[in-house]
Amino acid sequence: MRKELLKDIGEKELINRLGKFMPKNQVLDDCALIKTKNYNLLVNNDSLVENVHFNEISISPQDLGWKAVISNISDLLSSGSKKTVGITISLILPAKTEWVWVEELYKGINKALKQYGGVILGGDCSIGNAKMISITALGIQGELKLRRNACKPGEIILTTGIHGLSKLGFMIKSNINFDNNVSLNEKLISKSIEHFCRPQVNQNFLENLLKTRSNKKITRIGCTDSSDGLFQAVQDLAITSNCKAIINYEKIPRDKDWPKGKKWDEYYFFGGEDYELVFSLPKKWAKNLCKLDKNINEIGFFTNGKPSIEFKDHKKNKLLKNKPFKHF
Amino acid sequence: MRKELLKDIGEKELINRLGKFMPKNQVLDDCALIKTKNYNLLVNNDSLVENVHFNEISISPQDLGWKAVISNISDLLSSGSKKTVGITISLILPAKTEWVWVEELYKGINKALKQYGGVILGGDCSIGNAKMISITALGIQGELKLRRNACKPGEIILTTGIHGLSKLGFMIKSNINFDNNVSLNEKLISKSIEHFCRPQVNQNFLENLLKTRSNKKITRIGCTDSSDGLFQAVQDLAITSNCKAIINYEKIPRDKDWPKGKKWDEYYFFGGEDYELVFSLPKKWAKNLCKLDKNINEIGFFTNGKPSIEFKDHKKNKLLKNKPFKHF
Repeated sequence: MRKELLKDIGEKELINRLGKFMPKNQVLDDCALIKTKNYNLLVNNDSLVENVHFNEISISPQDLGWKAVISNISDLLSSGSKKTVGITISLILPAKTEWVWVEELYKGINKALKQYGGVILGGDCSIGNAKMISITALGIQGELKLRRNACKPGEIILTTGIHGLSKLGFMIKSNINFDNNVSLNEKLISKSIEHFCRPQVNQNFLENLLKTRSNKKITRIGCTDSSDGLFQAVQDLAITSNCKAIINYEKIPRDKDWPKGKKWDEYYFFGGEDYELVFSLPKKWAKNLCKLDKNINEIGFFTNGKPSIEFKDHKKNKLLKNKPFKHF
Repeated sequence: MRKELLKDIGEKELINRLGKFMPKNQVLDDCALIKTKNYNLLVNNDSLVENVHFNEISISPQDLGWKAVISNISDLLSSGSKKTVGITISLILPAKTEWVWVEELYKGINKALKQYGGVILGGDCSIGNAKMISITALGIQGELKLRRNACKPGEIILTTGIHGLSKLGFMIKSNINFDNNVSLNEKLISKSIEHFCRPQVNQNFLENLLKTRSNKKITRIGCTDSSDGLFQAVQDLAITSNCKAIINYEKIPRDKDWPKGKKWDEYYFFGGEDYELVFSLPKKWAKNLCKLDKNINEIGFFTNGKPSIEFKDHKKNKLLKNKPFKHF
């Protein structure tokens, strides 16, 4: 009899368990940190696997290249990287892959690098059954150290944008029957596809954080990105920071055409791949930041208590009994 | 009709073509280089894919972990890394993977890091159909810049050790029928399995190079590792350095029990995964180094001419018409 299967514990729990193999001064976070004399380097690795994170119907190779870069840039940003140094690319491709596919992939990669900075430093390629693109990105740690474990009770929880759109875009592109009873607005459809295929990252985030900071002594901020869904992001912050998150359902920013209903709430909270930042700040700082950047919204607060998530409106707590994020 | 298939061009040619997407000052080599004020960082990425580089019969998870680290350390060393900073690990695992498999893999990884230096900095895990382990390793550039394109006509070609053993070890472990007419010596069998499952890297290489250097002005040396086979390594050096390699068949260091014959020559030259260094030095330096480290052997020299390989004994040139290295 098998003692334990990955099937039962899932990717998330596996990554946590792998932490035991790391040195004690090294903390599992969005990025790894390398200290040098002049500045500290952030290192991140993110892989996209065919038929797990993407398939041929849902996304073009150019969009895939763009997205592979963005998922890494988002992780770097959520650790406080002020500049992307570059990336290395590891590709696994089936033998029958056409050159034009690879060329399109790299077009998307270079477009994203042009917009967000950084160059291709090198790479590796191997043959395999399914396509896989794994990017390692290196960035320079900025003044603010954004870490998952730095949230504090009393702080306001914020996000840089709207969730659920990427999930909806994926379902539209994959012809998945998501809800027959709802007819979607054209604008919402195109916005969702854009969010799924060409996600963006808030480039002014660190600058605006610094601009609105009143207490210069605060250099550590609780932060992660919502690549695995808003619910997963808040949960990661709560667990690693050892505090309880109270989410205000009414304050969650939705697209104005986002339909109502239980299913749509699930897409919203568990959707993933929106690459927004989820973070917490002292009250005054939070208020100033929201004034400066209208895309940023308060969605709740942290309090003392067992690491967990609750809705302010307790009736909404049944939503949390849903299964955690699985990549589409 | 398909315009072009990876099947036709192979991994090696694909990697060369991908070079066009990189900035012009960035050169395709074993490692990527990041310049900082105090020192330069070397970055390397190497992936091992199930049923391409390994399978469950041929290698245990602990040996696989060891080998995944060694293949990266070897690349770092072949660029002149004086110290491994650390590694990030990207895993793809089928849902049914057992925890004990992962634990054994990490035991092997940490054993290799204990021997060669460096720590686990972080990692990522995703579900997929076949197992894949991709490691990104960071090292600090030492005084000697070892580069594929730095070989010069007139220089002696050397290797740090014996080739072919890893290939033989793989065939023994996989019960592949390699040659019925030869009965192998027990010592050769165990040594080959050791080379395949627990390859080693020459840790004193850089120190010995520095000790035997008479002209301190020389800081660039032509070098690569033989992870894709001795033939491929010499060819990579010849092409990127734009010179012709003449190999002395008689001087090639063989295990004393290595059988004779065409097949055994093929295993030797095209075997791969021995992780020895293949490099070139001025005559005097080469002589001094071979005196200091008895495992290092001269195997030929570079000369002016079209980038290619020839044997000194022209009769042996038919060996070179063989197909290039494919991972077992």
